[in-house]
Amino acid sequence: MKINENFLKLQSSYLFSTIAKKVKEYSDSNPNAQIIRLGIGDVTRPLPQASIDAMHKAVDEMGNESTFRGYPPEHGMDFILEKIREYDFTSRGIDIDVDEIFLSDGAKSDTGNIGDIFSVDNVVAVCDPIYPVYVDTNVMAGRAGDVLPSGRWSKFVYLNCTAENDFLPELPTEKVDLIYLCFPNNPTGMAASKQELKKWVDYANKNGSVILYDAAYEAFISQDDLPRSIFEIEGAKTCAIEFRSFSKTAGFTGVRCAYTVIPKELMCGDVSLNNLWARRQATKFNGVSYITQRAAEAIYSEQGMAQVKQNIDYYRNNAKVISDGLKDAGFTVWGAVNSPYAWFKVPDGMTSWDFFDVLLEKTQVVGTPGSGFGPAGEGFFRLTGFGSAEKTLEAVERIKNAKF
Amino acid sequence: MKINENFLKLQSSYLFSTIAKKVKEYSDSNPNAQIIRLGIGDVTRPLPQASIDAMHKAVDEMGNESTFRGYPPEHGMDFILEKIREYDFTSRGIDIDVDEIFLSDGAKSDTGNIGDIFSVDNVVAVCDPIYPVYVDTNVMAGRAGDVLPSGRWSKFVYLNCTAENDFLPELPTEKVDLIYLCFPNNPTGMAASKQELKKWVDYANKNGSVILYDAAYEAFISQDDLPRSIFEIEGAKTCAIEFRSFSKTAGFTGVRCAYTVIPKELMCGDVSLNNLWARRQATKFNGVSYITQRAAEAIYSEQGMAQVKQNIDYYRNNAKVISDGLKDAGFTVWGAVNSPYAWFKVPDGMTSWDFFDVLLEKTQVVGTPGSGFGPAGEGFFRLTGFGSAEKTLEAVERIKNAKF
Repeated sequence: MKINENFLKLQSSYLFSTIAKKVKEYSDSNPNAQIIRLGIGDVTRPLPQASIDAMHKAVDEMGNESTFRGYPPEHGMDFILEKIREYDFTSRGIDIDVDEIFLSDGAKSDTGNIGDIFSVDNVVAVCDPIYPVYVDTNVMAGRAGDVLPSGRWSKFVYLNCTAENDFLPELPTEKVDLIYLCFPNNPTGMAASKQELKKWVDYANKNGSVILYDAAYEAFISQDDLPRSIFEIEGAKTCAIEFRSFSKTAGFTGVRCAYTVIPKELMCGDVSLNNLWARRQATKFNGVSYITQRAAEAIYSEQGMAQVKQNIDYYRNNAKVISDGLKDAGFTVWGAVNSPYAWFKVPDGMTSWDFFDVLLEKTQVVGTPGSGFGPAGEGFFRLTGFGSAEKTLEAVERIKNAKF
Repeated sequence: MKINENFLKLQSSYLFSTIAKKVKEYSDSNPNAQIIRLGIGDVTRPLPQASIDAMHKAVDEMGNESTFRGYPPEHGMDFILEKIREYDFTSRGIDIDVDEIFLSDGAKSDTGNIGDIFSVDNVVAVCDPIYPVYVDTNVMAGRAGDVLPSGRWSKFVYLNCTAENDFLPELPTEKVDLIYLCFPNNPTGMAASKQELKKWVDYANKNGSVILYDAAYEAFISQDDLPRSIFEIEGAKTCAIEFRSFSKTAGFTGVRCAYTVIPKELMCGDVSLNNLWARRQATKFNGVSYITQRAAEAIYSEQGMAQVKQNIDYYRNNAKVISDGLKDAGFTVWGAVNSPYAWFKVPDGMTSWDFFDVLLEKTQVVGTPGSGFGPAGEGFFRLTGFGSAEKTLEAVERIKNAKF
């Protein structure tokens, strides 16, 4: 038997596993250290009570013969699809049908698995820095080519996100087929305006490209004029797939629920990408837990929405505390306004990993090195607003009192 | 952009979607028909009370700040992996480490996604008849070639399962790389002895092949001398991957939990397949709901095991009722002893789909046409023991009283 040789091109470990290992080593040698983890983008607030109540009810249904549910439909149950359509799209003037929404166990799964429906021959454009999953899944699929000394991949077209362009990439000068965009961005925390997205939609429609739009952080948008969905942009339905998640919106990282929107207008010749994804999911996926689907439905109730807002405000405030504190400490900071992520420049002469080590050593604060998100992330660092308010304050105080 | 053209080779709809559509049409034109569904292999008994109790507790933990859990590890939490190791392997004399077990949201996902780690150039051997997912996922990946007039695929090596060989396939005469085996079998309901499996393990070790062993139905084995895991066979650790599921064992179809075992000894040259799958899952999967993992853990408790046994016995009895009834009605029947599935020959002169229509028309019983599982399934039919005892009895009575 022969393996998929593309796997051998990948670095042996995933960014967050490397961080976890480094922190464990530090913690083992410093058992009394009060470590504060502002690295991984995982939530810490409990689930909204509306979801907890809904899950108790659903669990009871699963224990009763007359209300027991077996295999869910692969694409999701009507009750949750209808809520998504109404609250996430219709309410913002976007016309999306329920059969254009595919419920899943996570945006990571979907952004990874979506490659199944595309040819290996497509030219992929990725931002740099970028969420590593987009890169690694394309390396696995054979769309990346070989790694260059710079750490970049030979077949990718890179979209530079730099301090100079405020981390909003310019259009590629060549023709590309698949374009990964994520706004509000992970890791930089920057959001895109309608005008900014229109530029990409026009490019994609002109060149027959598909935009793979990751909107997992849309709930953090605080400026009312910013788009929450790419489908707010005219023309997006013929060129975009959108990935959404309940993980960051409602704290579902531990219960697993997300969804992907593929408009029926999105065609490649006479083939509907919606049909291809429906076939992919029907063949390789068996739906989301009934209990989780009820939990997701509940966040669209009046109480649910209020509880979600409370959590989002909590994290947003943390992000502001971090951003303000870093600025006080003399750092240059981006993001944190429409995002849980603060992105900042590390002191001159240090690499991102140098700063990771120094920060851990001097303040016991764990962050994420920018270079873990791509070569252009070198010299930057990410802290997240997902910690507790108390620990976030404490972390900021420690950073302000440290000398780097 | 270019799509994955292999998708266009697939039939437009999945077997069970076609059945659902036909039943809906019948039901729409016959609104008073008392339809009994013994087609899809979905469970109907409520979840074991031990799992219900565990889920209520886990839901409460998720609603409390001090016990809330975020992202689970992609490969599963220690508490459930330890139970799996102890009860499913150690207790049967099999030495499997926790890091050889990968928890997931379903065996369908895993048997579909496992292809990611293998080269497109591998020669795939599939049984005929077969669970369609193994075939369709390899068509999507480009390992199937083109469909022939017979309904078979040009690049596959077919392992015939016929009445003549008691639906236990012979070894291929050529060299193959990936071999899909499923015992107790879906759809035929036949189980394999240790001697039978040893034949495959020896073949695979000799030829450097990998056996993709689907043991989703092992809980239905009633004959004590039959293997429940391929790892009961000497030499299997260097040539086999095993897929297990809580769906059929404990009725988890609606809550989604399964696992895959890849021994560390399974190598391709100096590359460990366990490492490749770990990387695949870390990149494209984000773990199983914490609540579901607690539900799975609970089935290994004393009460849990007793409740699971009760459900399995219930379905087994249904399968026996079906098998006995079909025999009384003059049919030749296989399976149903170590399996929830009864597999039988349709009356001479009819195709499997003919019989599907006639059975629905004359008895309002829904089954699964054998030809839906491959060309060699033509002339056979599957009924499942997953219905209620009352409806199963009623279905059998109707069949006995009908003339075909």
